Amino acid sequence: MYRLGVDLGGTTISAGIIDDNYNIIFSDTISTTEIRNEDTAKIISEDIGKLSGKLINEFKSYAPESAVQAIGIGVPASVENNLIIDANNLGLINADIVSGITRITGLDVKLINDARAAALAEYYAGAGAGTKSLYMITLGTGIGGCFIYGGKVIEGCNNAAGEIGHMVIDINGRVCNCGRRGCFEDYASASALVSDAKAEDSSINNGKDFFAALKSGNKIAESVFNNYLDYLSCGVTNIINILQPDIIVIGGGISAVGDTLLFPLKERVSKLVYTQHSRIQTDLKIAKLNNTAGIIGAALSV
Amino acid sequence: MYRLGVDLGGTTISAGIIDDNYNIIFSDTISTTEIRNEDTAKIISEDIGKLSGKLINEFKSYAPESAVQAIGIGVPASVENNLIIDANNLGLINADIVSGITRITGLDVKLINDARAAALAEYYAGAGAGTKSLYMITLGTGIGGCFIYGGKVIEGCNNAAGEIGHMVIDINGRVCNCGRRGCFEDYASASALVSDAKAEDSSINNGKDFFAALKSGNKIAESVFNNYLDYLSCGVTNIINILQPDIIVIGGGISAVGDTLLFPLKERVSKLVYTQHSRIQTDLKIAKLNNTAGIIGAALSV
Repeated sequence: MYRLGVDLGGTTISAGIIDDNYNIIFSDTISTTEIRNEDTAKIISEDIGKLSGKLINEFKSYAPESAVQAIGIGVPASVENNLIIDANNLGLINADIVSGITRITGLDVKLINDARAAALAEYYAGAGAGTKSLYMITLGTGIGGCFIYGGKVIEGCNNAAGEIGHMVIDINGRVCNCGRRGCFEDYASASALVSDAKAEDSSINNGKDFFAALKSGNKIAESVFNNYLDYLSCGVTNIINILQPDIIVIGGGISAVGDTLLFPLKERVSKLVYTQHSRIQTDLKIAKLNNTAGIIGAALSV
Repeated sequence: MYRLGVDLGGTTISAGIIDDNYNIIFSDTISTTEIRNEDTAKIISEDIGKLSGKLINEFKSYAPESAVQAIGIGVPASVENNLIIDANNLGLINADIVSGITRITGLDVKLINDARAAALAEYYAGAGAGTKSLYMITLGTGIGGCFIYGGKVIEGCNNAAGEIGHMVIDINGRVCNCGRRGCFEDYASASALVSDAKAEDSSINNGKDFFAALKSGNKIAESVFNNYLDYLSCGVTNIINILQPDIIVIGGGISAVGDTLLFPLKERVSKLVYTQHSRIQTDLKIAKLNNTAGIIGAALSV
């Protein structure tokens, strides 16, 4: 079966056709329109429709006996009833981009939240390949979560499962924008790491600065990183105690530092986790697919 | 289909045969042997085997054309490979009670942790009937959790999912016996409620004393209960943010106070939960089946 996946981002739109082995056999990228008004949804629909049409035509020459079955689109937003609920960066609120794309391509189109798409990709084709249950934790401005069990995203009754950024780990802690105190993402998101470091060393303005400082042996960065790891391992251990997935995959930009993050995190978690008897423990890995996860996961969602 | 469920407790063993509508059509109870030595497993096997045989015989007169398909046994312990791993109250460690019961009855026998059995019962026949996903929270000496999704217990890679009692909600808080600080059950278990109350009013020795004091307008009890509800609602809201199940069912002895617990808990949770868009929210209910949950859930596990 061949499926087309689209990764709709704030600056680019990438699309690709994947085969049954999760290989991307054709792909292309265009810029996302910069227009933000009542026409945005229509323009994006047409752009995705044309990009998809182009790939489908290339595919036809490649495999004239086969057909692309459906299109999955990963969007930086909540999704309900195949509508984009809140893609604030794109100015799309309760927006329908699906019907326009179906009109152009003649194919069924399904939207999926982009973090969930990335988790699906890691489950089938990335760090979690071969496991039954995977929890993906994405460290970014906030912290996103996605639980995949038996190949399916656990969506929740309102399609909003995975808000682990708003799991309280310090009931008397920092005030969170959700109204509670001490949420996981107030301490363990990439943003929290940078702002905690910047508060101690004003020359640190982003993750790149931070990890450069850490690598150079900056004592402030080391101390901030140790605190960060305490909080991150606390939240990761909570998820393990609650769900005991086969694997937890850490994604988001910060995961690019790989073992710098993974090794001390694993060490801490193995000491904290509550397992009474079994020697089987949740594995911890860094996300593997990065740039291609969006396309692969969106394709796998259909 | 007819199935036999057994609830193996520290003082009594209850068994019942249920029909397809989850009605218990025959049941009986015996005392659990008080012998705690190397013969305990054998004695318990024989007792359960005989009790089951008696019910199966009664069933044969009732429905000679039908047959009991299998036996499920709820045990107060972790279960691995159909062994009782740690029923400390019964003195059963890595114990096989299954083969003896199969020998006597000729039926397949499956063990399930008793808290999971209760959750299955609530899912199919109790407070969660008709839902797709249920999270059961049992407030007792500790806090147990069980997530049921699409009719199946989410067991975890090591069969140990549901350790929500060891979800940290106060990273700098009370030292827990698991080695971490600020675990949910250190604040929101029934034991924590009683010991927090006793620290303020030494006449309170158990849950009954506590709720009597609360009912009589005791100001200390009111204040302790308010704190307790703050912690309980924190943990419950965490589970909702992570999983967004259709329903959370509150069980355990303390849940017998019903609305005294449920109303203020619901009020707090509805203010804390993080839902950005949807008006669909996780429902909160008190467990419904109590005494029969063990038999029904054990039967449903096979």
